Amino acid sequence: DPKLKIFALNSNKPLAEKIAEAVGVKLGKTSVDRFSDGEIRINIEESIRGDQVYIIQSTSAPVNDNLMELLIMIDALRRASAKTINVVIPYYGYARQDRKARSREPITAKLVANMLETAGATRILALDLHAAQIQGFFDIPLDHLMGAPLLADYFLTNHLDENAVVVSPDHGGVTRARKLAELLKVPIAIIDKRRPRANVAEVMNIIGDVKGKRAIMIDDMIDTAGTITLGAQALMDAGATDVYASCTHPVLSGPAIERIEKSPIKKLIVTDSIELPAEKQIDKIVQVSVGQLMGQAIKFIHENKPVSPLFKNRFH
Amino acid sequence: DPKLKIFALNSNKPLAEKIAEAVGVKLGKTSVDRFSDGEIRINIEESIRGDQVYIIQSTSAPVNDNLMELLIMIDALRRASAKTINVVIPYYGYARQDRKARSREPITAKLVANMLETAGATRILALDLHAAQIQGFFDIPLDHLMGAPLLADYFLTNHLDENAVVVSPDHGGVTRARKLAELLKVPIAIIDKRRPRANVAEVMNIIGDVKGKRAIMIDDMIDTAGTITLGAQALMDAGATDVYASCTHPVLSGPAIERIEKSPIKKLIVTDSIELPAEKQIDKIVQVSVGQLMGQAIKFIHENKPVSPLFKNRFH
Ligand SMILES: Nc1ncnc2c1ncn2[C@@H]1O[C@H](COP(=O)(O)O)[C@@H](O)[C@H]1O
Ligand SMILES: Nc1ncnc2c1ncn2[C@@H]1O[C@H](COP(=O)(O)O)[C@@H](O)[C@H]1O
Repeated sequence: DPKLKIFALNSNKPLAEKIAEAVGVKLGKTSVDRFSDGEIRINIEESIRGDQVYIIQSTSAPVNDNLMELLIMIDALRRASAKTINVVIPYYGYARQDRKARSREPITAKLVANMLETAGATRILALDLHAAQIQGFFDIPLDHLMGAPLLADYFLTNHLDENAVVVSPDHGGVTRARKLAELLKVPIAIIDKRRPRANVAEVMNIIGDVKGKRAIMIDDMIDTAGTITLGAQALMDAGATDVYASCTHPVLSGPAIERIEKSPIKKLIVTDSIELPAEKQIDKIVQVSVGQLMGQAIKFIHENKPVSPLFKNRFH
Repeated sequence: DPKLKIFALNSNKPLAEKIAEAVGVKLGKTSVDRFSDGEIRINIEESIRGDQVYIIQSTSAPVNDNLMELLIMIDALRRASAKTINVVIPYYGYARQDRKARSREPITAKLVANMLETAGATRILALDLHAAQIQGFFDIPLDHLMGAPLLADYFLTNHLDENAVVVSPDHGGVTRARKLAELLKVPIAIIDKRRPRANVAEVMNIIGDVKGKRAIMIDDMIDTAGTITLGAQALMDAGATDVYASCTHPVLSGPAIERIEKSPIKKLIVTDSIELPAEKQIDKIVQVSVGQLMGQAIKFIHENKPVSPLFKNRFH
């Protein structure tokens, strides 16, 4: 029987530890560091010949370094005769560059998919891809996990009010918001942003009933936190009693932390798909782990069982 | 007739300017910068449909960022219908990871070649690849330029002494040293490093006659400068009157600058294949430009003429 081995690269070791624990194995021995000139040096320190190998790596910031670590590791595993190379990408960087919004733009999310396949990945396990279409950028099997059931679990045991409403910060996120609303058994509302004329500030119009209710916003990722904090203010202005926010991927770049601190958001619930450095671990932010979920998914894949039941319902 | 267009990325804009000037065109309009989260954003600001496009990019430090800039640019050009995408790589990073020296190592130089082809490169123009075998990592046409004739030109007008000897710092560099020696019409010597037993310091033995002579060392790249500075000391100890050093690629990482300052090397002649930041532009280092050489090569390629005469002899 081929062995199941899990290797962690440098982007998110705490999550990798949790995943390995959930699977019931120790992380494989490897060293991933730098030569003097900054080039990545990888040494796999145990035999993996004939094994089914899982690599855990988020392509979060520093995105190019994390991506190259992943590609070089796949290359090394392939040359060392791994039977399968299963790439677990809790956060898939460059996902927003998934189409040509203007002429002469790259489609970097597809480029990354091609690079992973060229390097030798045989399967992908992803979590809340920014666009579900990215699944189609791959020609190898891809399992796509959802974070909403985990976030639902959190809200069901904390802060939930029979008078709550789940709010999507834009039209693109309605499916995700509906999923959370179903799990919480509450209605949904949508923030409808419009720019009445060019060079005029956007107007935030709320579709649905939020007055006197606790609003729970959900998005796939929060980057500079502009959308979510302006949305929170618009909800308060529309008479919401208070606002909670949640997302799968806490990118939190640039002014994000300052904006969240200053916003009416009471708590922001995120997952650990991206490791948060100390300066981003503020009181308002609560992290729930996807380690158990991803570990279960790995076990199911290894046993050739379908992964989808893991997120059809609440995750236990 | 398809137009010739040259685009510069961020690794070495001064060299790109020189190349464009030698070709007689202006650099194409593009902006290559970062989103808030560090992801690369590329906008090509002029039409390139049906054009023959040349991209100038060294994959020097920060190597992963420079490599991803290059791959994303190739992707954008391909999707914008460039007729050909010619990738000019004055310094090819990860070139030393060109074989499995130990079990379970990656061969990153080949991975990079695969990435460039997958992204859509149609031709490569390289300069002094660390190993000539890297040419075989590509299935697309590759022209390989040599820096030695340029370095020879420098020595022929400066510092040359009828009593000089060209020294290769190791056995791997003998072909390169012989080329320089031929152009300078002087003999060669070789530094032969041996470790008599494990855990005993290396002994530097000099094969050839250096006593009372001016030694001119040549290597393809100088990284931490250990080899070249220890070699210079060994040459002085063996009775050389003085030591000059030269290389194509001034990687110069970690302790390199300090070691060069402290060493008996009188001058180090390098090319501008890698841009030197201000703190590395010390008095001992002289930079000669490969801009004219690479510009000529681009013109020859564009006119379907063979590139090799450019470095069969001294370069004018
Ligand atoms: N890392 C990034 N940060 C911010 N915006 C981005 C990033 N990558 C791509 N984009 C832009 O985000 C837009 C797509 O975002 P979305 O509409 O949310 O799918 C496109 O116009 C992209 O140019
Ligand atoms: N960026 C780097 N810096 C220092 N050594 C490297 C680097 N990349 C690869 N190597 C090592 O250099 C050796 C090959 O160098 P060489 O013998 O000069 O071709 C191999 O053992 C590599 O592991």
